[in-house]
Amino acid sequence: MPEFQQIVKSDKIRIGVIGSGALGLYYGALLQRAGHDLHFLLRRDHQAITTAGLTVTSPRGDFRLAAVHGYKTSREIGPVDLVLVGLKTYANPLLVDLVRPLVGPETVLLTLQNGLGNEELLAAAFGSERVVGGVAFLCCNRGEPGTVHHLDQGSVRLAEFCNGLSPRVERLAKLFNQAEIPCEACPDLQRIRWEKLVWNIPFNGLCALTGLATDRQLGCTETLKLIKGMMQEVVAAANRQQLSQPIDGAAFIDHLIGITLKMGAYRPSMMIDRQQNQPLELEAIYAIPLQRATEVAAPMPQVAMLHALLQVTEANALDPPPGQ
Amino acid sequence: MPEFQQIVKSDKIRIGVIGSGALGLYYGALLQRAGHDLHFLLRRDHQAITTAGLTVTSPRGDFRLAAVHGYKTSREIGPVDLVLVGLKTYANPLLVDLVRPLVGPETVLLTLQNGLGNEELLAAAFGSERVVGGVAFLCCNRGEPGTVHHLDQGSVRLAEFCNGLSPRVERLAKLFNQAEIPCEACPDLQRIRWEKLVWNIPFNGLCALTGLATDRQLGCTETLKLIKGMMQEVVAAANRQQLSQPIDGAAFIDHLIGITLKMGAYRPSMMIDRQQNQPLELEAIYAIPLQRATEVAAPMPQVAMLHALLQVTEANALDPPPGQ
Repeated sequence: MPEFQQIVKSDKIRIGVIGSGALGLYYGALLQRAGHDLHFLLRRDHQAITTAGLTVTSPRGDFRLAAVHGYKTSREIGPVDLVLVGLKTYANPLLVDLVRPLVGPETVLLTLQNGLGNEELLAAAFGSERVVGGVAFLCCNRGEPGTVHHLDQGSVRLAEFCNGLSPRVERLAKLFNQAEIPCEACPDLQRIRWEKLVWNIPFNGLCALTGLATDRQLGCTETLKLIKGMMQEVVAAANRQQLSQPIDGAAFIDHLIGITLKMGAYRPSMMIDRQQNQPLELEAIYAIPLQRATEVAAPMPQVAMLHALLQVTEANALDPPPGQ
Repeated sequence: MPEFQQIVKSDKIRIGVIGSGALGLYYGALLQRAGHDLHFLLRRDHQAITTAGLTVTSPRGDFRLAAVHGYKTSREIGPVDLVLVGLKTYANPLLVDLVRPLVGPETVLLTLQNGLGNEELLAAAFGSERVVGGVAFLCCNRGEPGTVHHLDQGSVRLAEFCNGLSPRVERLAKLFNQAEIPCEACPDLQRIRWEKLVWNIPFNGLCALTGLATDRQLGCTETLKLIKGMMQEVVAAANRQQLSQPIDGAAFIDHLIGITLKMGAYRPSMMIDRQQNQPLELEAIYAIPLQRATEVAAPMPQVAMLHALLQVTEANALDPPPGQ
């Protein structure tokens, strides 16, 4: 039985990033700047980053990494201490094969992906004892190849998939904080995942469906009411998931509305995906949460309707009829 | 007290058309071709129609009216036997002023507009005894100025606003049938209006919101379920409106799904309005029916959510933010 002590013992660890989108590039860049040994699986940005480095623009100060290890296949990376997974969940059918070459006896797998079902996928393939889950609160977009734009926020909450807190998850949180990623180790993965869904479910879907950013959704009386209604549905379903502590719905919803108001015309990741004709993360953010809610007899009818509308438009966006 | 006998006694009547969109032009053209004395209030098509006439293309045979009486103001038309109202309901704040110059002692007002609230508006201004309501099942679009394209269907159901059947409404139905407009006089205006809403509420809104025609909505399992769910909500609300006879929900819904499947890639009027950056008929098709449903304790939650989504996108379509 491996001990997974490498992360706890080492000051500098070897990290592989699978899914080098905005999130993977941004956190990877901060970890490399802090001295860790980073290895990025790259697709779109491979040439730009391996030849000219990685640039991060941020209100906290721009910086550039001149030398970045970028790869076209996971096999070239080989085993690491930590796999940081930032893959879009619609690519999850590829995830296990992408991660496998990075997994050695002591490798820990951290998924910062959206929604539900990601830890389960990694646990089934590599063993649940390896898996740590994380929730990122990050406003970040990709720019031209080789550049990532950090816009706002950026904190991360981590928890063990199996046991909540642990020395290694607290150590990971410390490494992240040392790399200027505000990070908290938490005792209940389900709770932090569902808390994030309370925001993601209404805003990602409404903004993707309508093509309107968060400020327009909050500025319309009817959609503000709808957002709060969906948030209540998600909180009710969350509070039946045997959380360590229930979510205080009214206070939490007020808090989320408040921070979203401050974000201005924010485009959630799903809205950007739709605008770029990418698939949407419907399985992780809608289908699996709806399934989990149904299993505990806490149906989410407004969420289900939003999911249906995203599905019909998704079918069209990815497979447009002739002449459209 | 007027007798409103003009329509009953005359073979040829004087008809004013207020709202000469696709519906007003098409039915007006058929009535003129049958020998009636038609007078159209025109806006977009005024010059084309008054100089070159009105052309109708139709699977039942194209035809052209060389000489058409077109006007820029209602005052030029003056009193008529029958006012045929085809105005888009979002222009209803103008309706009473547009109709007034056409109203003489014996004038009957027939509104073929969508949704609820139109007869009430005319009744409040001109007396309920004048008002007849009608529901049109018509697939018809405007083409270039002076041309209207009849695509499919075209039947009309008429009923008195106050008393259901009457000699004059049966006479009107006969005149319409003689003009090759399939028409039935019905005893219950509320019933025919709500029956039409069972179709209009799901399809108009879903197609306008998503930009996808009826075939795509029916072809997606999730939206088909949503359509049926909304239809059930509308039937339940309708059946609390003191109808002469309740709507048989299951059979009627199957019937509507069946005829819609046969319509192929049909674009409902609200979808066309959205694509042409016109306002949507949200008040008549959503807000007033939702209000009537609430009054009889038959809430329509899925309809309300669709209405909210149409409202937030409508605010944007008509008042786009800078830079979009």
